[in-house]
Amino acid sequence: MPTKTFAPRDPDFERRVRASFARQAVMHTLGATIEHVVPGEVGISLPFRADLTQQHGFLHAGVAAAVLDSAAGYAALTLMETGAGVLSIEFKVQLIAPARGKWFRAVGRVVRAGRTINVVSAELRAHASAPVNGVFADAGEVVTLLNGTMMTVRDRPGLTD
Amino acid sequence: MPTKTFAPRDPDFERRVRASFARQAVMHTLGATIEHVVPGEVGISLPFRADLTQQHGFLHAGVAAAVLDSAAGYAALTLMETGAGVLSIEFKVQLIAPARGKWFRAVGRVVRAGRTINVVSAELRAHASAPVNGVFADAGEVVTLLNGTMMTVRDRPGLTD
Amino acid sequence: MPTKTFAPRDPDFERRVRASFARQAVMHTLGATIEHVVPGEVGISLPFRADLTQQHGFLHAGVAAAVLDSAAGYAALTLMETGAGVLSIEFKVQLIAPARGKWFRAVGRVVRAGRTINVVSAELRAHASAPVNGVFADAGEVVTLLNGTMMTVRDRPGLTD
Amino acid sequence: MPTKTFAPRDPDFERRVRASFARQAVMHTLGATIEHVVPGEVGISLPFRADLTQQHGFLHAGVAAAVLDSAAGYAALTLMETGAGVLSIEFKVQLIAPARGKWFRAVGRVVRAGRTINVVSAELRAHASAPVNGVFADAGEVVTLLNGTMMTVRDRPGLTD
Repeated sequence: MPTKTFAPRDPDFERRVRASFARQAVMHTLGATIEHVVPGEVGISLPFRADLTQQHGFLHAGVAAAVLDSAAGYAALTLMETGAGVLSIEFKVQLIAPARGKWFRAVGRVVRAGRTINVVSAELRAHASAPVNGVFADAGEVVTLLNGTMMTVRDRPGLTD
Repeated sequence: MPTKTFAPRDPDFERRVRASFARQAVMHTLGATIEHVVPGEVGISLPFRADLTQQHGFLHAGVAAAVLDSAAGYAALTLMETGAGVLSIEFKVQLIAPARGKWFRAVGRVVRAGRTINVVSAELRAHASAPVNGVFADAGEVVTLLNGTMMTVRDRPGLTD
Repeated sequence: MPTKTFAPRDPDFERRVRASFARQAVMHTLGATIEHVVPGEVGISLPFRADLTQQHGFLHAGVAAAVLDSAAGYAALTLMETGAGVLSIEFKVQLIAPARGKWFRAVGRVVRAGRTINVVSAELRAHASAPVNGVFADAGEVVTLLNGTMMTVRDRPGLTD
Repeated sequence: MPTKTFAPRDPDFERRVRASFARQAVMHTLGATIEHVVPGEVGISLPFRADLTQQHGFLHAGVAAAVLDSAAGYAALTLMETGAGVLSIEFKVQLIAPARGKWFRAVGRVVRAGRTINVVSAELRAHASAPVNGVFADAGEVVTLLNGTMMTVRDRPGLTD
């Protein structure tokens, strides 16, 4: 759950976020699915797959970055007005433990929503088993952190979300 | 070509890097191939695929991060002694232009090689057409930058490269 | 208060941290003082001074970075064994609101303490008035964030803390 | 010298940058002076002072961050139109070698100038002696890197540069 309370400007934000996520073809390719979408926070889960690993058998940092970036970007989008789009400006990823697990969940959150600049963070947890009804049996281990900046884009054709 | 001259500690560095890359299953999944491997520098190329995009049709930032991280990490590995392994500690990714193109090439370079801590950078260029004999017809546009830190890991079973 | 519980390896950690802070000449120059020192967390406060500002009259980002880096680095040092020293490898600073206030407090925390690599974060809050008995009248506004990496240095003469 | 050629939108950019720097009170406090100001690039130099050090006697990372941030921010300002102001959104600092020397020079450069978002980098070199007529006897050692994002601010009273 978000640690802050945010008021969405677009009452239809959830549908917009889910529709935009559905257009992120790479999420399908990686096997990621979107979970909760609430004002200022979005969750994305990803089952482990051997074809997403780096050379030691862990989830590749780029795959972690992909779901963290999407979770954080869509968290920012939940608070944007109709017609705006979201673009990642930059993010930092910290690999704090080997990304080893059966299932991963990225949760992205808005830290500060500005008119143009949105500060976001996200964390990826590794879980030992698949979720049942959306709930994991274990608390999971935080393996990767993201801290980034998302831009609210306006009036740029093709960049609406 | 690297802007600095580095002396590899392992004369067999190129074979080691290529063998480790071959074990990065996600690179196959994304369609990335390793190109040049010289002391302190590694290139990785990636053809555009519609199933790797974000919602506006650009290459997803996480895919860019994946090839940049691998290029930078393997650049660091070229300088490590036999038996050592490479782990990403952290990296920052800056999306400086939309990642739009037919083909992408990431080049990772070592900025500073320490005993344990290696400072690396990488850039991703978008090209308008496929390379011919490894050479692109255009100079390409720099679309994404990475600046990061790679760790030299020793004496940890399973983490050798 | 720290959100995690850490067990210090050196029972004398508080004295060591305070003694090392006293040797950071720049902290005196900036007018910063160390406050609480507990396992995994350190606070540093800084009164506003007009001679520490950037061109719009806010606290300069570099001054914010200085106290955040020291708070985060000393948070890491609280958990290190006798004889080790702490070095900043890298940090990211996010300026999320103008650093405007009468008094600032940086709190640094350990996110993950490894054998050599320590992941840290810190935040700077701006307060409207000076603390009374170490307590601010207001909750303060978070104006700057730091996320970084600190190294545990061993066996390097002159780098003990 | 800048590696790219940039055309300033304000022919009076140099005077504006120098005037804004003169208002950065902290630069005086640290003893920093502005050097060259050309489109897309700014240099700032700083003599070593014992009262700017961390506990091992090196220049404190926050002081390095201060001059790097100013150099990078003013590099961005050289390309902004009359009436705009510059704000740091975020930056990453990498401490690649101990900041040990008699004199330091930070050079900030624009990597990409956008309408609102400017990507910048900067590096700090340590020199063994003071410059003579603005020229150092040695090439210096790169000790600290910055990669950041600067915002072009418009129509915000008090935030003009």
